[in-house]
Amino acid sequence: MATPSPGYSMILRVQAPSSFTATSEIASAAATAGAAVTALDIVESHPDHVVVDVSCNVADAAHRDEVRDALEALEGVQVRKVSDRTFLIHLGGKIELTPRVSLRNRDDLSRAYTPGVARVCTAIAENPEDARRLTIKRNTVAVVTDGTAVLGLGDIGPAAALPVMEGKAALFKAFGGVDAWPVCLDTTDTDEIVRIVKAMAPVYGGVNLEDIAAPRCFEIEARLREELDIPVFHDDQHGTAIVALAALFNALRVVDKKIEDVRIVVSGVGAAGHAIIQLLKAQGAGDIVACSRKGAIHRGESYDDAHRQWIAEHTNESGFSGSLKEALAGADVFVGVSAPNLLDAADVATMNERAIVFAMANPDPEVEPAAAAQHAEVVATGRSDFPNQINNVLAFPGLFRGLLDAGATDITTEMLVAAARAIADCVGAEELNASYVVPSVFDPAVAPAVAEAVRRTAQEVGATVDASVPAAV
Amino acid sequence: MATPSPGYSMILRVQAPSSFTATSEIASAAATAGAAVTALDIVESHPDHVVVDVSCNVADAAHRDEVRDALEALEGVQVRKVSDRTFLIHLGGKIELTPRVSLRNRDDLSRAYTPGVARVCTAIAENPEDARRLTIKRNTVAVVTDGTAVLGLGDIGPAAALPVMEGKAALFKAFGGVDAWPVCLDTTDTDEIVRIVKAMAPVYGGVNLEDIAAPRCFEIEARLREELDIPVFHDDQHGTAIVALAALFNALRVVDKKIEDVRIVVSGVGAAGHAIIQLLKAQGAGDIVACSRKGAIHRGESYDDAHRQWIAEHTNESGFSGSLKEALAGADVFVGVSAPNLLDAADVATMNERAIVFAMANPDPEVEPAAAAQHAEVVATGRSDFPNQINNVLAFPGLFRGLLDAGATDITTEMLVAAARAIADCVGAEELNASYVVPSVFDPAVAPAVAEAVRRTAQEVGATVDASVPAAV
Repeated sequence: MATPSPGYSMILRVQAPSSFTATSEIASAAATAGAAVTALDIVESHPDHVVVDVSCNVADAAHRDEVRDALEALEGVQVRKVSDRTFLIHLGGKIELTPRVSLRNRDDLSRAYTPGVARVCTAIAENPEDARRLTIKRNTVAVVTDGTAVLGLGDIGPAAALPVMEGKAALFKAFGGVDAWPVCLDTTDTDEIVRIVKAMAPVYGGVNLEDIAAPRCFEIEARLREELDIPVFHDDQHGTAIVALAALFNALRVVDKKIEDVRIVVSGVGAAGHAIIQLLKAQGAGDIVACSRKGAIHRGESYDDAHRQWIAEHTNESGFSGSLKEALAGADVFVGVSAPNLLDAADVATMNERAIVFAMANPDPEVEPAAAAQHAEVVATGRSDFPNQINNVLAFPGLFRGLLDAGATDITTEMLVAAARAIADCVGAEELNASYVVPSVFDPAVAPAVAEAVRRTAQEVGATVDASVPAAV
Repeated sequence: MATPSPGYSMILRVQAPSSFTATSEIASAAATAGAAVTALDIVESHPDHVVVDVSCNVADAAHRDEVRDALEALEGVQVRKVSDRTFLIHLGGKIELTPRVSLRNRDDLSRAYTPGVARVCTAIAENPEDARRLTIKRNTVAVVTDGTAVLGLGDIGPAAALPVMEGKAALFKAFGGVDAWPVCLDTTDTDEIVRIVKAMAPVYGGVNLEDIAAPRCFEIEARLREELDIPVFHDDQHGTAIVALAALFNALRVVDKKIEDVRIVVSGVGAAGHAIIQLLKAQGAGDIVACSRKGAIHRGESYDDAHRQWIAEHTNESGFSGSLKEALAGADVFVGVSAPNLLDAADVATMNERAIVFAMANPDPEVEPAAAAQHAEVVATGRSDFPNQINNVLAFPGLFRGLLDAGATDITTEMLVAAARAIADCVGAEELNASYVVPSVFDPAVAPAVAEAVRRTAQEVGATVDASVPAAV
């Protein structure tokens, strides 16, 4: 049975006889049924009965029903209602708008709206760059999706993707102070998505593409980067690549190897895999073998997909051809962004000494982490219930904070690497060990460090516009 | 010279000798130069000099320079800096996003984001109507413009229009609790605007079109209303029509006439004029003559523009043909949404006894209000510095609050009339007089009254979806 998760937390409102025995029986019955009970709160107390809210985590819907049945089976106990806390916090949405100006009297209105606002409009019409100072463009990012590759759920459409985009927006604000707005588009036409994002760009200082299926995501990102003067970032690619590179920097320190010297096997040549390989190459990784479901990508073959063809031309110099498992023999690093349960402990055992395994397939990794750890020295996954979680939250809030602060017009590889380095450096030398190669997502030092590194790099490479306060103010 | 306005308020930072005389001379010099001084604040005090912030309203940029020069001319006085308070409050934009969920620990993250959010996505994929309960769609409106008819400024483009849309969003929240998001589109192609708004609709519970030039605005509104299942409203048309009708309800009570009996002259047959005529017709107004720059629209002529043709067929039954001034003779009501200074006191004098004049051209009305008041009993304008301001802020926040609360799928004429009636009824019988036919924009009773009237009407006419809390919660 799956483990109870805070993502599936319930409140059971239970009526029970008013005796100490009865309430403690409730807790123990829930625990016996496998629920992780986090709280018991009496909400009503009467001479003959009490009403108790039992907060607990369960594994899934079937498990929830088992727990409810277990409580109902107790003498004199009735379950009045089962509330799902995940749904409760989603009611009405997870973000809202707040005015930053007072609107309580006529003077307020005259400045923030008509007639005063007309002068601000005129100033921007005369000098378009003032939009970055006098409007929300200064701090606002569009989170754009077509709902075709949402989490592990796939093509669920734009409306069903909205809770993820709202969550992303909430994280952008909480971790990076960035105002991010969900744009869920009811079209999967590449040309149309490009046209729409271009048309709505005046409001935004950056674009975060999210959960758009490959290969469409590549073309959309490339065209928007070419045609817009604000930075465009596909988080599923580059966010993952940044955090994976950060983890690799630190993992290599733990095992005392250099990126130039190691042999790296990448499993998965979709959006994330391609971005990871690009970033590894930029960091001087010399020996990379990338594998799709059909085995190693190599120069001996030609590929219809331009992105696979690029991988064939830029990796696997020895021309190895064979399966993922064969590629793994003797490798120093495994980076998986592919599918669950492709490998077992025996496969990891064929790797070089002091091996590094990043098994990032979600929700189930390429190899069971405990099994991998029998033979690899450093193991990381995308999951929060194992050490070393490779989580994009470590990158995107600080990255966009830095881009907006710099008034960046583009994102370069140097900025991605600077972000990765900043994340890696948040793990101090005295903290670094095989179980702690990436900082916690709740480490408040991460986003500011990433922001500062990205801002500085953007200004160094010159991909910025002046965003200082205008003379008119 | 124009009057000093809070829309043009300045802070002059002034260095002066430290004597009581010196600082009081500053205030009187500013006043003599025509500034309306609202505050003097000492920000630094030294043995020999002080630094004073002089807050004042001026009329325009030239006036600002005169005031500065008047202060500089004083003995020992130096103006260090002139700050424009309207620009200061615009720095960084007027709205921001706020998370409605806590994101402080792993449990929070597991519910608001992965893995818990996946269950919410799945619920919406299975039952699309749940989007109105479990996402921001519940409370969110798009404020859509192409920047082609912004205030009195005309076609200034989408970036320069953003301060107005942000102001509108701030008003939506402050007055109606509605989350409104600016969508400023860098295209003036009707088909493309329609396609874009349709594509982005999954996130929104309503669309407020704003400052889009006629005649494009008619087609965009009509097509979106036809093709979307959320209400679509062009504020420049219907917002103005609602508030004008509200003012007319009360003005007719003041002059003791009935809408069926009065002769109404409408000056202006653009977006607002057309909407006003439609609403007047729906309320049983029998005798309406509409005038363009070329004079009365009448059946004797045929018009290329379908909207003028509609007006020709539905007004002016007597077939009057002639100028606006000629039409005005003997009329009971003048409604102007056209151009400044078309009429003078003598023209108003030709109207019927107990005349009503609504001169709403912005910023300068069709007739100077004081001149109109010599002969008309009730005079209203779009300006805040005369009694009876016809201001859309009275309508749109409450209207959308009601539409969202009802889960409305469309807007009907009944709802517009209900909104107008609710606004009119906020002026109590004991408050009603010729100077108070519309409530103050700061009357906190207006938006809730409009919301309730619209919600009830929407539910009565059945243009709603069920927006109650789902069984799953």
